[in-house]
Amino acid sequence: MTATRTETDSLGTIEIEEGRYWGPQTERARRLFRIGTEHFPRGLIRAVGLQKQASAEANRALGELSAEIADPIIAAAAEIAEGKRDADFPLPVWQTGSGTQTNMNANEVISNRANEMLGQPLGTRKPVHPNDHVNRGQSSNDSFPTVMHIAAAEAVTGRLIPALKVLHASLSRRAEEWSGIVKVGRTHLMDAVPVTLGQEFHAWASQIGHGIDRVEATLPRLLRLPQGGTATGTGLNTHARFDATFCEKVSALTGLAFTPNPDKFEGMGAHDAFVELHGALNVLAVSCNKIANDVRLLGSGPRSGFSELFIPADGLSSSIMPGKTNPTQSEALTMVCAQVMGNQTTVTVAGAQGHLELNVFKPVIIQTVLQSATLLADAAESFAHNMVDKLEPNLPRIAENLAKSLMLVTVLNPRIGYDKAVKIGKKAVAENLTLRDAAQQLGYVTPEDFDAWVKPEEMVSPGATLAGG
Amino acid sequence: MTATRTETDSLGTIEIEEGRYWGPQTERARRLFRIGTEHFPRGLIRAVGLQKQASAEANRALGELSAEIADPIIAAAAEIAEGKRDADFPLPVWQTGSGTQTNMNANEVISNRANEMLGQPLGTRKPVHPNDHVNRGQSSNDSFPTVMHIAAAEAVTGRLIPALKVLHASLSRRAEEWSGIVKVGRTHLMDAVPVTLGQEFHAWASQIGHGIDRVEATLPRLLRLPQGGTATGTGLNTHARFDATFCEKVSALTGLAFTPNPDKFEGMGAHDAFVELHGALNVLAVSCNKIANDVRLLGSGPRSGFSELFIPADGLSSSIMPGKTNPTQSEALTMVCAQVMGNQTTVTVAGAQGHLELNVFKPVIIQTVLQSATLLADAAESFAHNMVDKLEPNLPRIAENLAKSLMLVTVLNPRIGYDKAVKIGKKAVAENLTLRDAAQQLGYVTPEDFDAWVKPEEMVSPGATLAGG
Amino acid sequence: MTATRTETDSLGTIEIEEGRYWGPQTERARRLFRIGTEHFPRGLIRAVGLQKQASAEANRALGELSAEIADPIIAAAAEIAEGKRDADFPLPVWQTGSGTQTNMNANEVISNRANEMLGQPLGTRKPVHPNDHVNRGQSSNDSFPTVMHIAAAEAVTGRLIPALKVLHASLSRRAEEWSGIVKVGRTHLMDAVPVTLGQEFHAWASQIGHGIDRVEATLPRLLRLPQGGTATGTGLNTHARFDATFCEKVSALTGLAFTPNPDKFEGMGAHDAFVELHGALNVLAVSCNKIANDVRLLGSGPRSGFSELFIPADGLSSSIMPGKTNPTQSEALTMVCAQVMGNQTTVTVAGAQGHLELNVFKPVIIQTVLQSATLLADAAESFAHNMVDKLEPNLPRIAENLAKSLMLVTVLNPRIGYDKAVKIGKKAVAENLTLRDAAQQLGYVTPEDFDAWVKPEEMVSPGATLAGG
Amino acid sequence: MTATRTETDSLGTIEIEEGRYWGPQTERARRLFRIGTEHFPRGLIRAVGLQKQASAEANRALGELSAEIADPIIAAAAEIAEGKRDADFPLPVWQTGSGTQTNMNANEVISNRANEMLGQPLGTRKPVHPNDHVNRGQSSNDSFPTVMHIAAAEAVTGRLIPALKVLHASLSRRAEEWSGIVKVGRTHLMDAVPVTLGQEFHAWASQIGHGIDRVEATLPRLLRLPQGGTATGTGLNTHARFDATFCEKVSALTGLAFTPNPDKFEGMGAHDAFVELHGALNVLAVSCNKIANDVRLLGSGPRSGFSELFIPADGLSSSIMPGKTNPTQSEALTMVCAQVMGNQTTVTVAGAQGHLELNVFKPVIIQTVLQSATLLADAAESFAHNMVDKLEPNLPRIAENLAKSLMLVTVLNPRIGYDKAVKIGKKAVAENLTLRDAAQQLGYVTPEDFDAWVKPEEMVSPGATLAGG
Repeated sequence: MTATRTETDSLGTIEIEEGRYWGPQTERARRLFRIGTEHFPRGLIRAVGLQKQASAEANRALGELSAEIADPIIAAAAEIAEGKRDADFPLPVWQTGSGTQTNMNANEVISNRANEMLGQPLGTRKPVHPNDHVNRGQSSNDSFPTVMHIAAAEAVTGRLIPALKVLHASLSRRAEEWSGIVKVGRTHLMDAVPVTLGQEFHAWASQIGHGIDRVEATLPRLLRLPQGGTATGTGLNTHARFDATFCEKVSALTGLAFTPNPDKFEGMGAHDAFVELHGALNVLAVSCNKIANDVRLLGSGPRSGFSELFIPADGLSSSIMPGKTNPTQSEALTMVCAQVMGNQTTVTVAGAQGHLELNVFKPVIIQTVLQSATLLADAAESFAHNMVDKLEPNLPRIAENLAKSLMLVTVLNPRIGYDKAVKIGKKAVAENLTLRDAAQQLGYVTPEDFDAWVKPEEMVSPGATLAGG
Repeated sequence: MTATRTETDSLGTIEIEEGRYWGPQTERARRLFRIGTEHFPRGLIRAVGLQKQASAEANRALGELSAEIADPIIAAAAEIAEGKRDADFPLPVWQTGSGTQTNMNANEVISNRANEMLGQPLGTRKPVHPNDHVNRGQSSNDSFPTVMHIAAAEAVTGRLIPALKVLHASLSRRAEEWSGIVKVGRTHLMDAVPVTLGQEFHAWASQIGHGIDRVEATLPRLLRLPQGGTATGTGLNTHARFDATFCEKVSALTGLAFTPNPDKFEGMGAHDAFVELHGALNVLAVSCNKIANDVRLLGSGPRSGFSELFIPADGLSSSIMPGKTNPTQSEALTMVCAQVMGNQTTVTVAGAQGHLELNVFKPVIIQTVLQSATLLADAAESFAHNMVDKLEPNLPRIAENLAKSLMLVTVLNPRIGYDKAVKIGKKAVAENLTLRDAAQQLGYVTPEDFDAWVKPEEMVSPGATLAGG
Repeated sequence: MTATRTETDSLGTIEIEEGRYWGPQTERARRLFRIGTEHFPRGLIRAVGLQKQASAEANRALGELSAEIADPIIAAAAEIAEGKRDADFPLPVWQTGSGTQTNMNANEVISNRANEMLGQPLGTRKPVHPNDHVNRGQSSNDSFPTVMHIAAAEAVTGRLIPALKVLHASLSRRAEEWSGIVKVGRTHLMDAVPVTLGQEFHAWASQIGHGIDRVEATLPRLLRLPQGGTATGTGLNTHARFDATFCEKVSALTGLAFTPNPDKFEGMGAHDAFVELHGALNVLAVSCNKIANDVRLLGSGPRSGFSELFIPADGLSSSIMPGKTNPTQSEALTMVCAQVMGNQTTVTVAGAQGHLELNVFKPVIIQTVLQSATLLADAAESFAHNMVDKLEPNLPRIAENLAKSLMLVTVLNPRIGYDKAVKIGKKAVAENLTLRDAAQQLGYVTPEDFDAWVKPEEMVSPGATLAGG
Repeated sequence: MTATRTETDSLGTIEIEEGRYWGPQTERARRLFRIGTEHFPRGLIRAVGLQKQASAEANRALGELSAEIADPIIAAAAEIAEGKRDADFPLPVWQTGSGTQTNMNANEVISNRANEMLGQPLGTRKPVHPNDHVNRGQSSNDSFPTVMHIAAAEAVTGRLIPALKVLHASLSRRAEEWSGIVKVGRTHLMDAVPVTLGQEFHAWASQIGHGIDRVEATLPRLLRLPQGGTATGTGLNTHARFDATFCEKVSALTGLAFTPNPDKFEGMGAHDAFVELHGALNVLAVSCNKIANDVRLLGSGPRSGFSELFIPADGLSSSIMPGKTNPTQSEALTMVCAQVMGNQTTVTVAGAQGHLELNVFKPVIIQTVLQSATLLADAAESFAHNMVDKLEPNLPRIAENLAKSLMLVTVLNPRIGYDKAVKIGKKAVAENLTLRDAAQQLGYVTPEDFDAWVKPEEMVSPGATLAGG
């Protein structure tokens, strides 16, 4: 039997496990929502602490709370931000759609902890009251979405963008390093005119570079906070300068330039800013899926595939096929991409169904956004370090593939016209000739001209191969 | 510093934390996949144990493993199935797309544990070898999808369907209980001709009932296992009767009627059976979203909404609005639905991108399917117990709404024609009259006929109100 | 200037283009919904005609309409079913969510056409009245979803399943034809142990075969019609046997075994049956995406890819690269799959948002379902005829790829153990040896044993290669 | 029998309907892709014409084409842009994934039309050759995505944004007009503290305003064109200044500031710019879904719903319920939103599956993007004109709802504390009292204080109601 203490609220008494900082609202919620195993990540609980800390600081500055009440609230909230009270946040993601239970959980933990600092036992609700003081000038309806904005902004700026820059740098380094390796290009998965290996890596780097820009383009709306709207967006029961003061405080705590959302209703009844942000994450998933796929295509083989890249031997073996090397990092990354693409639908469905003054899909929206940001960050970095940085070009195979490519005939178009070039190509295939021999036999190009014109290394940029170029 | 033991594999030596049952393949994977926080749920790890146990039993029965080797494998695998080795499965979902690392993790844990039972220290790899014995006649490529099928079949039959039956029973009970409460119907969210409250609950029960049928309709393909295909589907290196014997063994362990997939290639290269299953889960999400929405619409108010149902006072309060009762269970359930709808996209994207002999999105597919099944089960049961069972009709408001409904005029169509009925309705609105007065003033219906014809309680079934009815 | 006639309804007069069979409700809707270019396809308009025809037949049989009124309605409705009045259905998909405007369009066209047959000018509304007679015992709310069921059932049984059978037959024929061609298998896109080309085609055929089963498994719920529910599901103003009689009539017209939905509310307030059906279409998209991708992978090259299949030269050329052959049918098919996967989200979102007695996303649901069914049917047939039937194996390349495969070493596992097999494989790679030489140099396998054991043609089924096999 | 002319290409002869401007490549494609009924919209065909016109102008300016050849090309291309040749673009969306057939269709139509202008019969291919001249310095692989960018940029700037501004203006006008109407707010669909009707409309206007910003934020990447990359991105066979000159020409034709994509590979192998753009369209769908839903909630009734807004009587009637007015514009708009949300999945799936130098889902991507942009534009404008502009507040009901709201008790929190406020609220509910009476009976608030503090009209902004406020 676990020892308990008895607490009382407006519905009656309830038993809470001894030593827990949470109170009756959290305990009731724990019993009413036995759904799934998903809990909010550290970053969200940290943001809960920051939101309560900044609120108490703002209320103290505005004279809404005395220092005697505000200071222990601030100290207790800081403990939450620092990760010291994670065990006292037992609620699942699947709760009320306003996040009220997590907000009340914070109010109860802080009030209990603050009172404890002031020498009171757990459960006294005074001198620091969870609603009147910890939640002062706030509602779950503006506080929880504020927490969402803080957590997402920190995840994006502190974790995702730096990880994307690692991948961008890896790809860019390869692009430069291999800019001189001319190889067969491929369109429709079929052999096409030459490109350089560096150009392929550069395209991937461009995708990630644009991806960073896209995420950053969402920040203006992500950094705008609904705090100060209280219950419905009007700001009832809060100080007229609470929103601005809160933003100053939370900006100081995070180093991010948060400002008040001028239309609190928009920030509480809708969460378009998160649908927008996830749209940018979704593009990253699309980009990463393409890149990871291309790498495993070029690495396919080792003998019966494209075989132009050596996939790193990472020490992970097939359980049955001895010595097999697989593109395991591409697979982890593309699975992450599939998750993010699904999360896009989740966020869309959740964002679309707000009602009047409140969107009540807040927990699933922020859970999904944070999951996507974290997975993309981790997988991008893992892919950079364990795949991109360890790839090697298979130079003999690259040369062999290029030499036998029939699409080199393309360079003849401007000299002899498309229709004759078609005939050369078809003859080479049908009679298994080299392009050079086919061209000569048809009498369209002399061997000398052929050698002068068909130079793969000159075919990887515009202009050089034109008749008059 | 954590104490370690040194193990050696084909890539060299590696340090593993002392006392861990896993081996070098698991340890290498742990270091290579630092992605996200998602781990496979208990049901999947249980299925891993069952798959290894049934494999060893089949190999023993077929003479492919001696009892000396097979028996400790069986015992060690059973421990995994029972949940005693969960801590030795440290790998994230985001690994190789074949689930190879989790299969090797099982092979290593079992080999180590079996050898331990036989008096050997961890890391000896003999007499029980992870590949040659634990993985005997198997590959990750057939074993992991087999695990997926087992885990999903157990989740669906053992957890989801029973939970749906709870919700179905709750809704059906209400449908019967309230079959006599006549109320205003609503189409386009606008007042329409009468229905009974019981009819509304019956429609919801029908949706869940069909949902159970839909999930059950997917079982034929879910119970077909690819085990026996080994590396590519051909069954290389396994006994010709391994597939059938395995299915007998795993059916005995689970009580489910598994049979061999006659086309192993289909069961390894594609996972259409899971996309199909999730399609059925997706319909459940659609149904539950509708039901939960309808309940909160009927419960909206308490004074300025539809207000025909009293939402249960569950003791969870607004942090700012005293005494407010909210449809918290509808919100938890619709958030679950949003997650499942997004998971549908994830499973679709993952299922669509298999390549030749292997789909390499296995971990994300099974993770997502199990998440959806679990969330729907938990949320359906929570909604049944904490919402449906505690709803109460607001009889005065129901009567008031019905009495003032203008759509009762519809019953006059067969007597006086649609065009005249329109005029009555419009006059009642424009002059704020009762329908009865408007009908009389227009001279279309006498008050006596009106009273004889316009009886809401006779308007909730076909035939009764027809001119000749 | 177009000549017009003036019509009057309860809102006043309105001008309608001379000679049009539609009436004021259609004309008003035309002006109010200037959205997009999407119109319902023929199959939907046909179903509208069938629904009105069967309704009049049922009303006549039940004595609800006299033959004088019913017969011209039946004749006019049949013209719609036959496609003679398509030009009189001018409304877009994007209208009222109940499909009311299309139902009223039908009522107006039929009433006008029936009156015309009876010698009256257009616009007279008598003796045949659009609401009182054509819509007799019906509402848009039960008629339009009935139309949806009819149209979808015809599309699935009359078009989609036959087309899938064509593709299934093509794939199966190839599977048998090429069952003796042994080739390198591929897992993780990397070279793996051998399979036959026939086995690969057989797996694809299995996918399509299951896909047909999946679509057929949805028919029980698709063939259940909500007709008879009228406005809210209660059946107000319709004959008590209207639903059953209607189903007899429409079954006779279509040859499909329609029955009344015992819970009309479920069939009007929700459209889970369509979400379920589309779930089966979504699995087909997933299957087809996989198949089309695999074909273009095997056909990649012609020289620097997998190059095991010759893609048919369909006469479509690159605009710049002379003589290039591309897998154009794979591309058309995978684009269709992308559309269907997106349609799955559309149907899900639309199905989830019904409110109480009416789901008001009916037009977009049926439009999307019919689009997916049609596209899959057309693309499957096109892929069968223009791709599968014209593929040819590249036998020299297949033999070359197989001969050099390192994964043949797998067959040694049961003889010498996995760890030694790994060493052979690694040595062969590192020193560019054949497996045979590497095995001999390591002293693990004699050349005689190697030749006896390593026979790719015996590696494509279970049992044969086991030590004791 | 239709009269035909015989044309010859590298595959042999083919019959083309007499008088058609298209050639053998188009004709072959017409026969090979009998899939669906979807054709590219006008905006895409216009962009095809613009791309060819600007290309010929650039080639002329760079000396790559003589004026004799370039001028008739320019004239013929202009006819396509102007819509005079739409009937000569018979191909479906479901073709090769590079859009090659539509590019070749343009090349053939222009060459035939240009030669016709020069006095040659159709089918001569000279002096203007479809590949050598019309397609000069181009490939389908860079031309078709360039067409996509042009079409999308015109759709967004020329149609979508202006339409959104119409809706934004309508909502903003209402917000201002009704800023003084105080009403009950609603959170969780339950009665909450007061807001103004103007604040609700302002929130919706904010959503649309941000939506415009979001679409505009994608323009930098949308206006960057891959033209000049030719077959694989390298620019083989085009003039080194073709890309820049082309952008000058097409910018002059469209008035939009197009610039060359510095990484052509990124713009051909991936279409992230369209996934990004559609992400912004998806947010608009989310916003519009919320707005349309809120409007129908507030308009629900007219007697048994929220009934705070009068939905406009648009003249569209129920087919069975006389005089019923429905929120038809909300329904059309939310159906559009469902389509756009599904299109988001389509574009994501299509964008994610590019391979190396070419994404071959181009036609479905642009078709979907243009559909979403057009539908959102049309539906937004229709909703503004036919719904927002015609809504009227139901002032008596608004006043009645507000007066009886229990949540006015919230304003007492700062004066008497949350716990006492809860007791007042619960007592009022249980004993059916006014808040004023309950407060007095409990002795917490005097009637005088109550009247001084509880003023709904002062509760719709921050600060005013604070104890010291």
